Amino acid sequence: MITFLFCEKLIVFMIADVHIELKEGVADPEGESTLKALRLLGYKRVKKVSSVRVFRIEIDTKSKEEAEKEIKEICERLLANPVIHRYRINWIG
Amino acid sequence: MITFLFCEKLIVFMIADVHIELKEGVADPEGESTLKALRLLGYKRVKKVSSVRVFRIEIDTKSKEEAEKEIKEICERLLANPVIHRYRINWIG
Repeated sequence: MITFLFCEKLIVFMIADVHIELKEGVADPEGESTLKALRLLGYKRVKKVSSVRVFRIEIDTKSKEEAEKEIKEICERLLANPVIHRYRINWIG
Repeated sequence: MITFLFCEKLIVFMIADVHIELKEGVADPEGESTLKALRLLGYKRVKKVSSVRVFRIEIDTKSKEEAEKEIKEICERLLANPVIHRYRINWIG
């Protein structure tokens, strides 16, 4: 009798921070109004405020490459608008 | 005649990323609806999505300590709600 031993790759749990930033030249009303509020509160030395959205994604995967591919796809399909946003992925731990 | 030479400290330009996160146990409707949308799109291996706001602040200052103190004050007065948020400051460059 022959026994086949299937050695499946382990599923690992990974966490990525996906930073969604506005491209250069795109208006950032949230950053601008924050800057205006800071000026009104007397913080004259603050020169610029920009807003960035971060999504922390926890994912089960077989490898970092596979997870990176999936998260890139998620950014392009759902999280970022390629006309106005650029994104970068930061792995945690 | 005595000449006094006042040696003023140089003003330097610094950039900080201020991360405003929800405290443990606080509902995150944006993260939850993003997770729901990802499940509907077929990304079953994504286990959790949390949203974080980041403000990139560009500030003129005489020292890092002074800028850190000012940015902490800004967080407490304007950017973060201490009941539901915690914040951390990341210096860039």
